[in-house]
Amino acid sequence: MLDEEKITKAIVEEFMESFLDHTQIEAGLAGAGPANLVAAKKLAEEGVKTVVFERKLNVGGGMWGGGMMFPRIVVQKEATRILDDFGVNYHEHGEGYYVANSIESVGRLASETVKAGAEIYNLIKVEDVLIREKDRISGLVLNWSAVDRAGLHVDPLAVKTDVVIDGTGHDAEVCEIIEEKIPGADFSVKGEKPMWAEVGEKALMDTTKEIYPGLIVSGMAANAVSEAPRMGPIFGGMLLSGEKAAEIALSKL
Amino acid sequence: MLDEEKITKAIVEEFMESFLDHTQIEAGLAGAGPANLVAAKKLAEEGVKTVVFERKLNVGGGMWGGGMMFPRIVVQKEATRILDDFGVNYHEHGEGYYVANSIESVGRLASETVKAGAEIYNLIKVEDVLIREKDRISGLVLNWSAVDRAGLHVDPLAVKTDVVIDGTGHDAEVCEIIEEKIPGADFSVKGEKPMWAEVGEKALMDTTKEIYPGLIVSGMAANAVSEAPRMGPIFGGMLLSGEKAAEIALSKL
Amino acid sequence: MLDEEKITKAIVEEFMESFLDHTQIEAGLAGAGPANLVAAKKLAEEGVKTVVFERKLNVGGGMWGGGMMFPRIVVQKEATRILDDFGVNYHEHGEGYYVANSIESVGRLASETVKAGAEIYNLIKVEDVLIREKDRISGLVLNWSAVDRAGLHVDPLAVKTDVVIDGTGHDAEVCEIIEEKIPGADFSVKGEKPMWAEVGEKALMDTTKEIYPGLIVSGMAANAVSEAPRMGPIFGGMLLSGEKAAEIALSKL
Amino acid sequence: MLDEEKITKAIVEEFMESFLDHTQIEAGLAGAGPANLVAAKKLAEEGVKTVVFERKLNVGGGMWGGGMMFPRIVVQKEATRILDDFGVNYHEHGEGYYVANSIESVGRLASETVKAGAEIYNLIKVEDVLIREKDRISGLVLNWSAVDRAGLHVDPLAVKTDVVIDGTGHDAEVCEIIEEKIPGADFSVKGEKPMWAEVGEKALMDTTKEIYPGLIVSGMAANAVSEAPRMGPIFGGMLLSGEKAAEIALSKL
Amino acid sequence: MLDEEKITKAIVEEFMESFLDHTQIEAGLAGAGPANLVAAKKLAEEGVKTVVFERKLNVGGGMWGGGMMFPRIVVQKEATRILDDFGVNYHEHGEGYYVANSIESVGRLASETVKAGAEIYNLIKVEDVLIREKDRISGLVLNWSAVDRAGLHVDPLAVKTDVVIDGTGHDAEVCEIIEEKIPGADFSVKGEKPMWAEVGEKALMDTTKEIYPGLIVSGMAANAVSEAPRMGPIFGGMLLSGEKAAEIALSKL
Amino acid sequence: MLDEEKITKAIVEEFMESFLDHTQIEAGLAGAGPANLVAAKKLAEEGVKTVVFERKLNVGGGMWGGGMMFPRIVVQKEATRILDDFGVNYHEHGEGYYVANSIESVGRLASETVKAGAEIYNLIKVEDVLIREKDRISGLVLNWSAVDRAGLHVDPLAVKTDVVIDGTGHDAEVCEIIEEKIPGADFSVKGEKPMWAEVGEKALMDTTKEIYPGLIVSGMAANAVSEAPRMGPIFGGMLLSGEKAAEIALSKL
Amino acid sequence: MLDEEKITKAIVEEFMESFLDHTQIEAGLAGAGPANLVAAKKLAEEGVKTVVFERKLNVGGGMWGGGMMFPRIVVQKEATRILDDFGVNYHEHGEGYYVANSIESVGRLASETVKAGAEIYNLIKVEDVLIREKDRISGLVLNWSAVDRAGLHVDPLAVKTDVVIDGTGHDAEVCEIIEEKIPGADFSVKGEKPMWAEVGEKALMDTTKEIYPGLIVSGMAANAVSEAPRMGPIFGGMLLSGEKAAEIALSKL
Amino acid sequence: MLDEEKITKAIVEEFMESFLDHTQIEAGLAGAGPANLVAAKKLAEEGVKTVVFERKLNVGGGMWGGGMMFPRIVVQKEATRILDDFGVNYHEHGEGYYVANSIESVGRLASETVKAGAEIYNLIKVEDVLIREKDRISGLVLNWSAVDRAGLHVDPLAVKTDVVIDGTGHDAEVCEIIEEKIPGADFSVKGEKPMWAEVGEKALMDTTKEIYPGLIVSGMAANAVSEAPRMGPIFGGMLLSGEKAAEIALSKL
Repeated sequence: MLDEEKITKAIVEEFMESFLDHTQIEAGLAGAGPANLVAAKKLAEEGVKTVVFERKLNVGGGMWGGGMMFPRIVVQKEATRILDDFGVNYHEHGEGYYVANSIESVGRLASETVKAGAEIYNLIKVEDVLIREKDRISGLVLNWSAVDRAGLHVDPLAVKTDVVIDGTGHDAEVCEIIEEKIPGADFSVKGEKPMWAEVGEKALMDTTKEIYPGLIVSGMAANAVSEAPRMGPIFGGMLLSGEKAAEIALSKL
Repeated sequence: MLDEEKITKAIVEEFMESFLDHTQIEAGLAGAGPANLVAAKKLAEEGVKTVVFERKLNVGGGMWGGGMMFPRIVVQKEATRILDDFGVNYHEHGEGYYVANSIESVGRLASETVKAGAEIYNLIKVEDVLIREKDRISGLVLNWSAVDRAGLHVDPLAVKTDVVIDGTGHDAEVCEIIEEKIPGADFSVKGEKPMWAEVGEKALMDTTKEIYPGLIVSGMAANAVSEAPRMGPIFGGMLLSGEKAAEIALSKL
Repeated sequence: MLDEEKITKAIVEEFMESFLDHTQIEAGLAGAGPANLVAAKKLAEEGVKTVVFERKLNVGGGMWGGGMMFPRIVVQKEATRILDDFGVNYHEHGEGYYVANSIESVGRLASETVKAGAEIYNLIKVEDVLIREKDRISGLVLNWSAVDRAGLHVDPLAVKTDVVIDGTGHDAEVCEIIEEKIPGADFSVKGEKPMWAEVGEKALMDTTKEIYPGLIVSGMAANAVSEAPRMGPIFGGMLLSGEKAAEIALSKL
Repeated sequence: MLDEEKITKAIVEEFMESFLDHTQIEAGLAGAGPANLVAAKKLAEEGVKTVVFERKLNVGGGMWGGGMMFPRIVVQKEATRILDDFGVNYHEHGEGYYVANSIESVGRLASETVKAGAEIYNLIKVEDVLIREKDRISGLVLNWSAVDRAGLHVDPLAVKTDVVIDGTGHDAEVCEIIEEKIPGADFSVKGEKPMWAEVGEKALMDTTKEIYPGLIVSGMAANAVSEAPRMGPIFGGMLLSGEKAAEIALSKL
Repeated sequence: MLDEEKITKAIVEEFMESFLDHTQIEAGLAGAGPANLVAAKKLAEEGVKTVVFERKLNVGGGMWGGGMMFPRIVVQKEATRILDDFGVNYHEHGEGYYVANSIESVGRLASETVKAGAEIYNLIKVEDVLIREKDRISGLVLNWSAVDRAGLHVDPLAVKTDVVIDGTGHDAEVCEIIEEKIPGADFSVKGEKPMWAEVGEKALMDTTKEIYPGLIVSGMAANAVSEAPRMGPIFGGMLLSGEKAAEIALSKL
Repeated sequence: MLDEEKITKAIVEEFMESFLDHTQIEAGLAGAGPANLVAAKKLAEEGVKTVVFERKLNVGGGMWGGGMMFPRIVVQKEATRILDDFGVNYHEHGEGYYVANSIESVGRLASETVKAGAEIYNLIKVEDVLIREKDRISGLVLNWSAVDRAGLHVDPLAVKTDVVIDGTGHDAEVCEIIEEKIPGADFSVKGEKPMWAEVGEKALMDTTKEIYPGLIVSGMAANAVSEAPRMGPIFGGMLLSGEKAAEIALSKL
Repeated sequence: MLDEEKITKAIVEEFMESFLDHTQIEAGLAGAGPANLVAAKKLAEEGVKTVVFERKLNVGGGMWGGGMMFPRIVVQKEATRILDDFGVNYHEHGEGYYVANSIESVGRLASETVKAGAEIYNLIKVEDVLIREKDRISGLVLNWSAVDRAGLHVDPLAVKTDVVIDGTGHDAEVCEIIEEKIPGADFSVKGEKPMWAEVGEKALMDTTKEIYPGLIVSGMAANAVSEAPRMGPIFGGMLLSGEKAAEIALSKL
Repeated sequence: MLDEEKITKAIVEEFMESFLDHTQIEAGLAGAGPANLVAAKKLAEEGVKTVVFERKLNVGGGMWGGGMMFPRIVVQKEATRILDDFGVNYHEHGEGYYVANSIESVGRLASETVKAGAEIYNLIKVEDVLIREKDRISGLVLNWSAVDRAGLHVDPLAVKTDVVIDGTGHDAEVCEIIEEKIPGADFSVKGEKPMWAEVGEKALMDTTKEIYPGLIVSGMAANAVSEAPRMGPIFGGMLLSGEKAAEIALSKL
């Protein structure tokens, strides 16, 4: 016999056990877009205690809608090995342009990341950071995103983390918080430049970096902070940026 | 060199080829919640030309948020074989209660369905149906859901389909259209009864049925049409309902 | 040294311990207005495992604003003993009319109820009920009210309770759910009658009753279900209704 | 027998054929107000591959409402030859002031432009530009305007174009994008000056120009970028500005 | 020298002369969709004093967006003569399906109707009717639609008319007013049936009729009142309905 | 027999005759608050062709609500002669403080101004100005305020005026337009200072002045432009400011 | 020296003295439109203790905007004596049609009513009634209308009154309350019929009556309750209805 | 017999007596969060005439929701004596972390403050200040917060006060008003720094100070003005800040 009380307990206990086990983590990722999902999977595979915080109910960022609501994405050759790693199907459409189904892609990015051992907490917004001695980011201040959307005034809670990856897209939300609150931070979120797929994709390998002690930027957040171009519905650079962000994080831990 | 025009063409051509190939289908599923994703995968595996239409940007319905925003779901023993089939991890939490990560679950449901050969078109709303001689549903009338959300007045387009599965949750949107417009339809969407996990889960095996020629209901839409109880964040019945809906559809084709 | 992680753990652990300890309760009260706070205090004092669920961030219902935003309330003689019990100050203003500060009153109602051992969970909405064999209410289905206010689609969780007191004001929300979903329920929420302080206050002693197996109504919800008059900013009847609701509940446990 | 599937195919195939044929164009016009419609007709008549992108469902910009919702417009003598060219009726009302019906005028501007061979895509918003070597605008980044109005997050697509005409009115949207994103752009959208019909009309002949390599401004966008006066419901200058913008575009191709 | 005062006077005088000349008309058409524009042109050509009242800023109804935002419409063979009459281009796409550009089509419908001598007043909403002895509609009660959209409370004005054509689409707004306010009216706006192009198109020839003394319905309003099917983005029936509505009106004058 | 057509004609003809007679005026007042109503009455009594333009449906500005929704206003001794002039009742409440009913006051300000011969056009917004040679304001650009509130895009019309009085309250809307659009204007709308009844009231006699050729400020607009204090619900200064504004205007005509 | 504290005290004391003096009145009028202002003036002139409660900030109802935002109203011959009584100017426009300025008219209606001794409390909404033995309305339940508009939950206060006049326009708000809450009330607010100036104006003399013990209806509320026609911007009947309502009230006191 | 009129009088008279007695006070506190409630209680206990103005319907500020909607707060050892003083229960959770129920805490803070003799006026917003000679804050300008929320335009009233404590949280609303309006004020509301519980709690003892003659800041407003860190759901510093603010105020009186 199914018992609602037991269902309630199963869900609450499982979540709370997980949450209380993750108040001190090694890698805290803000945003569950393609870049951060790639980064989280790699980090988890390396045994890093990893949590992705996503303000929305669903993960996958801007990938769901493909281009102009046509649910297909394009990936270039050098990133197809990441699609392979996640088990996403694709085929070539014109030389050098590989097309995948945007919905399948998000599904695989999400599921393989969790399978690899990373936690994803959706509906949670990063609303502030912990900055400690030596001006290093050392934690994330969290709240239910529904609190904000419902116009409530409720205090947040904080978790500690050794390294943070800001993969919140062109808003670069964690960077924004630091830029606004820490006078000495020597970067600013000026936003991405006009679309230029070729240049934007390549730039990501340079813009994906540690821009503040303990804070790495990935995906469009990386280009937005460094004023590199946007790329449109081609996602190879995003995937590679996630991979690189994970490598940088690993080198810091 | 990446070329934006080629990216544009790749995406538009791929989508249009798919769309124009699916104006006459065998199974048209409204709603991409858990039940319909299970149904679509099974149908596609049987070689049925299958399309799932989802009004939201993302698929997965109410599964993302687990229970009360704690991202875990419960599944009972008899449905774990479907989790196995989709490759979703789970473990037992108290006897007979299996817990899975809600995000991983949606990811797998989405990706395996597409891999199996079903098409999922997101951002598309079913706003009407085609009813033909002998009072049989024979097509779906579609529009971009953004048209409605933006308050625009734009005509829809239609596709033909041999069978329809309404898996749009407790609103049972396709059923609602028929109830409102077809005087002779002998059912009504009265809504689900108060939560009763045990009864609701079992009821789904009976309520998942063809309720109008060519129209099968699945998941919460099935219980809503038959006034059976809701179940809360236990999803075994939903998955089995999808499976059964597919079996009924196969028997009609 | 204060440590944010420890603050986080202290709050989450304390709440979760409380919440998991209250998935099976004796008295579940919907709404934390004056009547239900009086009821909860009395029940807790009698050793009943009691939880009040309040959808708003704050408790106290309509008492805060006094009459027309002038923060004073009136209580008649027979209810001043309840003010005394809660430690609320008041003084006589014209024969038989006792005036208290509305803000102090809510403060005392809230704090003394918690002190007496009742739990109050704010920001939680009762969105459904559990009805079991013999048509008896046997649990409450809960969700964060922010989920609804934020327009999210997230499943609820349920707790079991031996008795429910609906003190949600003139909307009588729990009664509404039963009226709408249970065909055999022989009552309906028709709403309160025009204001008549004398009659409305007295009616409350009759309308506060068990109207469905396991479901007691208190405060304005009681008058709304029985079509008795509303009373305006005189609160004696509300306080006495809470007391009576508790007595009925005790007799059922 | 009419067949819905065939209607669907006819519309989708015709549009897609057109759209895919216009991913590389010669003249891309942002905004379908009076100036750009005049420009597009002239360009199309000269054999230039021309597309007008309009974010709204309808074209005609601010001309529909005449002055203060009285659907009449005024045109001065020198522009009546353009009305003649489009086949719009008018008559003299006081010396030198020619009055036309605003609705008829928009109708003719729209229909004759399409007839001349220009494509008009409505419901599409220019949300970014392509800038290439030598700082030249070389394409437009497009999205369904419903995506923005519905609050969705979906990637755009891009088309290449040899020359762009910004005729988006006083917001000068394409100019705004360049001003904001390209540091070296030596103009800014300061907005139009107070109304002065005489001066504003004449100014348009000077302000209609190439203000950035490959980018021409027309109509109120031209006066807004050059801080010339606005004119009110007199449209002669607008029409002549469109004509001039086309001439400049032709000289660049 | 252009003079703003003279522009103001030209516009106001021209409109007022027209408006005051049309407070007593022969044909008052509510809604400027395709059907009513065809009707108005025909009536004006026959010398009937005709005004079309349109609540929106633009005319053309649902035709602008083609099907699903792809700006093409389909017309069947028997209605191409009306496209010819208005000077709209089209070509055959598959046997019996003629495709036209939706934007050009609206442009021509609007401009040719005005040229033929009908007045179109946009931004004016029909908010009530005049009903006189013998239960006959004898006038329209008008207001600026901006009054309603701005939430203002301002009295309307009325014009008299011999006959009214309700072409306000599936809302059938004039019919709704009469249904709601005149107990004896023996029709009701039940809404259109599910899409069926073949049947809906043919039905229009029957449903376009005088349904109340002095009140003719056209276009989707006709099918909505008679519960005939909707048709989607095929417009032949709409155009023919307008023609028939005009013929009926002529027979009544 | 009353005839709706004649009522329509009476209203439209009367308004249009008035409006067309006022496209060239001597004094154009923006805002129908207390100061401008006093100014308009005085100007009209002196035979000046005067129009007050008010964006709201009603006139009287902030006077209706008295102080904190208690409908009484205070006027000091020196301004009671203006109350006398308008026929407003008042009585002394404590030495030097005269109290009047706020509703009666607005009623008299409105009616006596019209009786004196000034025109008041409500629901009309000043959205721009005419500036001519020698940098002098020489007209007002008008639109229905409902156009703005309804989110429509409709062109304005203009009237010429010899002098303008900006009495639009602390927003000083006409001043704002000039400050924003005319680089050489040597004033700015910095807003009023904190409340100081004594100083604010006296300041008004200095701040009420011509601040730009042809543009006089009155009432709170005067203090806002000169950064003088606000006064709260004491209206003597407002009334005297209106009187002074009229005197300045007369000296310019 | 002006002192803010004294201004505060003057306003609060004056209002409170008035308010506390009017908790027991003879005539309570809901709505301050033209009919009720006429009624209130007449009642006050007869020495009746009279209060008008108006939910809006301003009084005058729908008269401000004239017809279609043209600020003129029409009054027929028999009602000009009421305009005379209030001191409103008018002149004849075509035989039997007298035109007045709508703004002047409201101003006079408001100011003369207050001068006559009636109190008008604006910003106060009648949200309920007191019904006592013998089913007679005996009071009004009031709240600040801002409470409702701000979405707050605050209790109302009540005043007693011998007679009530509902002049709240076509919503007939007091009647609505009684219709909804008192089963035996033998009337219903079905709404006004289509516009018919002649019939509607005359009907008002019959529909202005006591429809429930102690409750008289006036103006459009009277026609709405009796399903008589609406009249448009002709106000003679409204004024006469107010006069008649006062006469009926006098006969009851 | 209960009489509604007497209830009305009791409430209005009691409030008005209180209000009129507090137009000249010694301490005016803006915001009824934890810090200001502590301050108000202490001031009242010292015999200071004290009023707290709170814009919301309820008091308690951000304390209700605990951390992330889990209704528990943490207080460190040194502040438990204030909890003791207010009679709030707590217990130790890990060394040095004391946990209290957030709802009980607010209840006690509110009720004990009123009991101590301070007045709390809820639903009242401080919208401006009085600044007098020698640049000293000498009063508060008040309005119903519902006026603002309802979008009404109504004048405020003012009360005089010897000292003001701004405890409006991180918005520091009174400070904001002075910063914006008084050029010489040498502070600015730059906002709080990232969360750092240890540093933020200690900083409060320094940042709680008189920052402008007569104006003291308390709680988060203090840290926001001095750019000290925020603390999250630990409230010891807030309570101590209130105590200190009271001490400073006492030293100024």
